[in-house]
Amino acid sequence: MVNYGLTGVRPRVVIVGGGFGGVNAAKALKHARVDVLLIDRINHYLFQPLLYEVATGTLTPGDIAAPIRAMFRRQQNVTVLMGEVTGVNPAAKTLTVAAMNEPIAFDYLVLATGARDNFFNHPEWQGSARSLKSLRDAIDLREQILKSFELAELADDDASADWLTTFVIVGGGPTGVELAGTLAEMFEFTFKNNFRRLHPDEARILLVEAGPRILPAFDPALAQQVHRKLENMGVEMRVNSPVEAIDDQGAIIKGERVLSRNVIWAAGVRASPASDWLGVPADRSGRVIVNPDLSIPGHPDIFVVGDTAHTPQGDKPLPGVAQVAIQGGRHVGAVIKAHVERYPAPPPFVYHDKGSMATVSRWYAALELGNVKTAGLIGKLGWAFIHILYLSDMQNRIRTFIQWTWANLFSARGSRYITRPFTRGELASVDTPPPTANDG
Amino acid sequence: MVNYGLTGVRPRVVIVGGGFGGVNAAKALKHARVDVLLIDRINHYLFQPLLYEVATGTLTPGDIAAPIRAMFRRQQNVTVLMGEVTGVNPAAKTLTVAAMNEPIAFDYLVLATGARDNFFNHPEWQGSARSLKSLRDAIDLREQILKSFELAELADDDASADWLTTFVIVGGGPTGVELAGTLAEMFEFTFKNNFRRLHPDEARILLVEAGPRILPAFDPALAQQVHRKLENMGVEMRVNSPVEAIDDQGAIIKGERVLSRNVIWAAGVRASPASDWLGVPADRSGRVIVNPDLSIPGHPDIFVVGDTAHTPQGDKPLPGVAQVAIQGGRHVGAVIKAHVERYPAPPPFVYHDKGSMATVSRWYAALELGNVKTAGLIGKLGWAFIHILYLSDMQNRIRTFIQWTWANLFSARGSRYITRPFTRGELASVDTPPPTANDG
Repeated sequence: MVNYGLTGVRPRVVIVGGGFGGVNAAKALKHARVDVLLIDRINHYLFQPLLYEVATGTLTPGDIAAPIRAMFRRQQNVTVLMGEVTGVNPAAKTLTVAAMNEPIAFDYLVLATGARDNFFNHPEWQGSARSLKSLRDAIDLREQILKSFELAELADDDASADWLTTFVIVGGGPTGVELAGTLAEMFEFTFKNNFRRLHPDEARILLVEAGPRILPAFDPALAQQVHRKLENMGVEMRVNSPVEAIDDQGAIIKGERVLSRNVIWAAGVRASPASDWLGVPADRSGRVIVNPDLSIPGHPDIFVVGDTAHTPQGDKPLPGVAQVAIQGGRHVGAVIKAHVERYPAPPPFVYHDKGSMATVSRWYAALELGNVKTAGLIGKLGWAFIHILYLSDMQNRIRTFIQWTWANLFSARGSRYITRPFTRGELASVDTPPPTANDG
Repeated sequence: MVNYGLTGVRPRVVIVGGGFGGVNAAKALKHARVDVLLIDRINHYLFQPLLYEVATGTLTPGDIAAPIRAMFRRQQNVTVLMGEVTGVNPAAKTLTVAAMNEPIAFDYLVLATGARDNFFNHPEWQGSARSLKSLRDAIDLREQILKSFELAELADDDASADWLTTFVIVGGGPTGVELAGTLAEMFEFTFKNNFRRLHPDEARILLVEAGPRILPAFDPALAQQVHRKLENMGVEMRVNSPVEAIDDQGAIIKGERVLSRNVIWAAGVRASPASDWLGVPADRSGRVIVNPDLSIPGHPDIFVVGDTAHTPQGDKPLPGVAQVAIQGGRHVGAVIKAHVERYPAPPPFVYHDKGSMATVSRWYAALELGNVKTAGLIGKLGWAFIHILYLSDMQNRIRTFIQWTWANLFSARGSRYITRPFTRGELASVDTPPPTANDG
């Protein structure tokens, strides 16, 4: 096979997935005597927790996406390939990549392929609901939001305009909360005086949660504060409200038909198909059940980390958050390094909870760090500090800081360009009012 | 019809096109007792001369695109609509917009709809050559460049890799020159140490010009300096070299088949269909021949400006550059204001040439301002100063300044994300080498 910068002499570590887990595993192998091949479907490391800032135009895609190969340009033992892994043969210790003639052999394999949206038993909802998992999703959602308002301004009748400017966010976790708050601010401040006919601050935003409260991973009192804050910002809060249907006209929420062009999915996720590749047991969400060192049963040299792994700790598995993937990736790097260099294996993986955060508005975020539980300006400052700290490279940090400061002070959003003229279908939606409510 | 913020009392000026011409006409009407309706197919004012910086990832799309309605949020006599004008009835003084049930009436009409690529008598080339006229074009070109290198790194054979990393730029005007120089720098500096197998600095860049020299609008000695500079940067300069064919495998340049996945069109343009709408005479490039006050023959209240107009001045028409459109738009605004307010009409339009510029590299630009003719660092400083001055809003200026400074000092390019995984077709191109040279 083609020599992708690999020596062929040192043990070869193949890492699939260039997110928090994969990139941190590769970094942890910096001084190990191995060759690392890092494969991802896309070319960038993505700071996923800030996707909603791209979707609402505060940050640009480049602020939260760094080219993986640029991150490793000085770590000579890492080779980066953009490619689609199509299968793994654990027994032969090889994997296949689309368009490559020969399989790739590995001595160690790290699967860190993340998760995708889970529409439970309703795959047909996917065509009508917007996701927010990838940079492409965020860019497409931004274009849809901007176009919805342009179409509404053009619309002849109010029913069309209302349908176009109603936003249903499904899922009351951090992503749903952050999106609801940021949309409310965008409509109230950024769009102020921009339209002559529409009143963007009257656009409807619904935050829909099937469970009894938003932010279930947070302290109940803190979650309640955030709930009230969102209500005060004009977000219609619907807890205990399962979504029963999603189609091109909107959604049915606990029996009520809500007409909306913009249904956004921020609810369940399902692990990537790693367990199918490996032929090993998975939990209900498709996550591979891993050993205490994050290897898989029967294969001490194959590891699964992050959202793709079911990592038992205490009485339940670890949540699908960035820190679990980051710490898991580092741990696996250390395990491999120890094995290659014949040191004793590190102790089993223990996750250190660094707390939870959710931003709500320009000056308001909820923050839980150990015993510190706060919501408001202090929370926002802590939130901003931690996020800038974790952004991947220096240029992004500076730019992002400027972007945020500017957007907060002046309610400006730098990225409000639409890249495609209206389609025929979009133009038709201006003329034809959707069916009246309660037809479902 | 719906009342788009128009009073229905004051004279109505409809401006079609939100580029340099249209936006400046609307601004010039700020204190006029008129209602302005500004219609564009897209929602942003685009700083077109810097599109190549977006295509090469130095600037983000938001740096050079400002939402038109945000620009006019405080100019209350302007209403902005995103919409597609489908026709004009000069006799009835109305125009039609897609998806709007009724035609829009005007008292004054300004057509500033720009130009699009002109493939002369070869419309079939359009499918194989990349354009660089819109933000969408620049974003797509950026994605194609990045993907070409990713595919080449993945490729099994050298013939495919060469085809993927050969860039043919058709047209030796400022756009072609700027793109060639920026690509050369991107490959040499930005991609440095990023690939383990490819040598991006060995990627081929051809700048192809049918005429005897590049930058025909510049002083010949200055153009010659730029020619040598590009040669020293590794660009293959082909003057007196008409392009005879373009297809998916590459181009035939003066009889020679050049295999290339990336043929970029920076040659002729053709005016938008304003002359068809109006039913008035146009020149060979489709530009409407206008009167000295920029109105059209027989219709003193219909004006055409910018790339859409054939504006005689001296012995030849004015060139299709930003300054002609900006000054034309301002002039038309003044003519309409004078007419509405019963002042004497301003004197006929006279274009003031503010000089020409073309950047070549981080520290090198050609600059012609009256008798000042310089190429090099001084040119680049003047170039940067003037461009930042003209960028439309404050946030963009600051961000762009930081972006440029950073990119120049560290050869960094902030926007190097790919948003879509490889398609089947792209993956096939890795495996199947294109036919050998000279088959055409």
